Amino acid sequence: MASKLIAIVAGVGPGTGAAVARKFAAAYPIVLLARNPDNFESLAKEINAEGGRAIGISTDVADSKSVKEAFEKIRKEFGSEVGAAAAVFNASGRFVRKPFLELTEDDFTAGLDVSGKGAFLFSQATLPLLLKGVEAGSRYPPSLIFTGATASLRGSATMASFASGKFALRALSQSLAKEFGPKGVHVSHAIIDGVIDIPRTKEWLKDAGPDAKLSADGIADVYWHLHTQPRATFTWEMDLRPYVEKW
Amino acid sequence: MASKLIAIVAGVGPGTGAAVARKFAAAYPIVLLARNPDNFESLAKEINAEGGRAIGISTDVADSKSVKEAFEKIRKEFGSEVGAAAAVFNASGRFVRKPFLELTEDDFTAGLDVSGKGAFLFSQATLPLLLKGVEAGSRYPPSLIFTGATASLRGSATMASFASGKFALRALSQSLAKEFGPKGVHVSHAIIDGVIDIPRTKEWLKDAGPDAKLSADGIADVYWHLHTQPRATFTWEMDLRPYVEKW
Amino acid sequence: MASKLIAIVAGVGPGTGAAVARKFAAAYPIVLLARNPDNFESLAKEINAEGGRAIGISTDVADSKSVKEAFEKIRKEFGSEVGAAAAVFNASGRFVRKPFLELTEDDFTAGLDVSGKGAFLFSQATLPLLLKGVEAGSRYPPSLIFTGATASLRGSATMASFASGKFALRALSQSLAKEFGPKGVHVSHAIIDGVIDIPRTKEWLKDAGPDAKLSADGIADVYWHLHTQPRATFTWEMDLRPYVEKW
Amino acid sequence: MASKLIAIVAGVGPGTGAAVARKFAAAYPIVLLARNPDNFESLAKEINAEGGRAIGISTDVADSKSVKEAFEKIRKEFGSEVGAAAAVFNASGRFVRKPFLELTEDDFTAGLDVSGKGAFLFSQATLPLLLKGVEAGSRYPPSLIFTGATASLRGSATMASFASGKFALRALSQSLAKEFGPKGVHVSHAIIDGVIDIPRTKEWLKDAGPDAKLSADGIADVYWHLHTQPRATFTWEMDLRPYVEKW
Repeated sequence: MASKLIAIVAGVGPGTGAAVARKFAAAYPIVLLARNPDNFESLAKEINAEGGRAIGISTDVADSKSVKEAFEKIRKEFGSEVGAAAAVFNASGRFVRKPFLELTEDDFTAGLDVSGKGAFLFSQATLPLLLKGVEAGSRYPPSLIFTGATASLRGSATMASFASGKFALRALSQSLAKEFGPKGVHVSHAIIDGVIDIPRTKEWLKDAGPDAKLSADGIADVYWHLHTQPRATFTWEMDLRPYVEKW
Repeated sequence: MASKLIAIVAGVGPGTGAAVARKFAAAYPIVLLARNPDNFESLAKEINAEGGRAIGISTDVADSKSVKEAFEKIRKEFGSEVGAAAAVFNASGRFVRKPFLELTEDDFTAGLDVSGKGAFLFSQATLPLLLKGVEAGSRYPPSLIFTGATASLRGSATMASFASGKFALRALSQSLAKEFGPKGVHVSHAIIDGVIDIPRTKEWLKDAGPDAKLSADGIADVYWHLHTQPRATFTWEMDLRPYVEKW
Repeated sequence: MASKLIAIVAGVGPGTGAAVARKFAAAYPIVLLARNPDNFESLAKEINAEGGRAIGISTDVADSKSVKEAFEKIRKEFGSEVGAAAAVFNASGRFVRKPFLELTEDDFTAGLDVSGKGAFLFSQATLPLLLKGVEAGSRYPPSLIFTGATASLRGSATMASFASGKFALRALSQSLAKEFGPKGVHVSHAIIDGVIDIPRTKEWLKDAGPDAKLSADGIADVYWHLHTQPRATFTWEMDLRPYVEKW
Repeated sequence: MASKLIAIVAGVGPGTGAAVARKFAAAYPIVLLARNPDNFESLAKEINAEGGRAIGISTDVADSKSVKEAFEKIRKEFGSEVGAAAAVFNASGRFVRKPFLELTEDDFTAGLDVSGKGAFLFSQATLPLLLKGVEAGSRYPPSLIFTGATASLRGSATMASFASGKFALRALSQSLAKEFGPKGVHVSHAIIDGVIDIPRTKEWLKDAGPDAKLSADGIADVYWHLHTQPRATFTWEMDLRPYVEKW
């Protein structure tokens, strides 16, 4: 049936993106977007093997042509009238931390390209599908969820690039929440404040004891909670951090 | 068994407080605090009739003697070693909206007495019980949840009293989150932005269509979600509003 | 002449209050309020000796009777029709920094009494005088300036009392700015973030080099700048910190 | 003398930029940057005629080549060792207000190109000159001032482009304040909240009475005040609005 609603996750990697994809795949056919197919291939296989349905599409969210092609593939796969129940923007771009005067123009725009333009392109591509989800009477309000960070609220020395992108993303998400909330789409922004427990961070915070890092599954549970909020009780923004995090 | 963990809700009325109490009563024996017994008597009866366990205690949270007596009753009822799984501060005090120069001193301190001193007294009384809940290895991290409002973030003309109290409450909740989070207690602050659908607001926003008011049950679901977050993924603050709310 | 406009400073001590008083005394007869006369006696003498006009009144700003008596003295001294060009609320109350569970009720309310109720009483007493200043066509828009702190924006572990008071003060100042701005009174809130250079802090931050502490005279210059802003260009809030301060 | 410090204003137009340029031209030789020479030619003439020294350079701040050429001209004009006392970034880019799904990619990036990349390029070009100003012992701490807006703090429906850019700009300015403050450069961010009184807005807010619009000269006075703050008392952020503005 063409009207089956799907979920789309941009920025699938070893942490939040994969955990969110697994969580939402239990309810919806899922589309995995990442630049590097290594980031979604085994995950798609795993979801499909466990009875879900997943496709991965190699996509550069900051490139309009690439995003356009990705959504053409989605329509080819799920039908031109496909709607979405959820879209999660979890991409971040290259993280650059350098003294400001050493930043190249590419370093600086790394943040803005993905968190600014990329989030714009993703939102423009997914909102029409989410609005179709509203029309289709989806069980939960169709949801567009953005992953923020501490740097969404605070600029820091040597973090100008990352913070500029994350501030821009927060502005976009708030603007969209105000414009599309009344149309029935739930737009949210989660501020992830802390280190996420993934292979790359295995050696970090080892002295801080257990649970000192955010679990990707815990973040996925929160995104699912946001998704299931009824339209009378929408959260736009929430923060998330491990219990020992200083802030 | 003396170590059975309880939940305590201050500010039980016809809206959020009652809904939260019903939600948490499904998991824990529950204590209902309100100044006026009319606000908890039938609710306690209802919970007890449905197989839960509830006691109501008439309490003025802004009065240290009254709070002390309430917690003596709690210890008498549940044992001197009782711990808590959750404590919810939902009291607000008299809402005053007047031109500033017409406020009496009592008008102004109405906000601060409950949201400032009352929240302090409630926190000092419940945190030792919540820390016992941590020691007892509660299933979910013991939770101290505060109800905020739009006025927690913005002062408005003619709202000096209410906003002062709600700002103070937010400061308290953030300070406690930073101090008691590392000890395993989850301190949260929910910003309720909009009109709650209760008998008193029945005629409000009638032209705004369905779901234009926050449902108390929806808020209770969110508080329960906060309560069940694992300690690796704590939310301190989230906002909640109906999908059509302007902000 | 009875209509001569005055300035009133509450919370005169060795730092900001005295510097602000000196600055405004160059333009206006000045009233110095402090609980302890030691805090204003020599300052009043100094201002009067240098050709200004100052009176000190021992006042507990958190006590309505004491505030009432102070303003009766002001009317006695300057005439019952006296108006004000500026009122500065620089009082803070006893600073308490303790683990939360060790706070007494008095410890906790120390912040709220002064920054909450005290600021309310001071505002109610001075706003009628400031409105008279508007009517009298004061050269600069009559100004009501509040001294905030880092703790106006962030709660911290062991700072619940101070932060609650400072958050409440910020709410009050924003509410008043919105209500009295359109009436021509300029309400401002300055966030003082850092250590002020006064005798008591002489040994602090000695290794941080010169100018690592805020100068009280620099703060006074900023308050004067706020005071002289025309009504087409009002600042409600600004932060102030030494150049080396981390934040 | 090569060490004479200059001021540089980007985004010279009929409002804030021109007023700021006039104000700073009273103290420093001034460089006027704007895409369209119409925006600086008569102003440069006026400043030069009145005994100041001004040069205008047609510059697209969002284009690295154009910025590079502009600063080569500056070095040619003032010497390769020229330092700066002040740099003001007042550019905003094309203002777009449209339903989100009607925005073209160009519409959206209009905000980010100028307020994101443009501010980055301008900061990278001016900070070395400002650091030279510190070394040269400038009378006032060399200052880098950014013009923000209401949209720096709040996203709004149909304002996604403008808000994304202004949020990004705020992140940049805060990051730079933290990195370059300790090096003696004063980085500030002014939130201009309201309509500025310029020919284009002549017919706006006519019923709101006098002074309902921000005066560009008033804003310039505030920027000058920021510039003259000593390093012991730096303001990073302040808001500015007419007394009747709702917020």
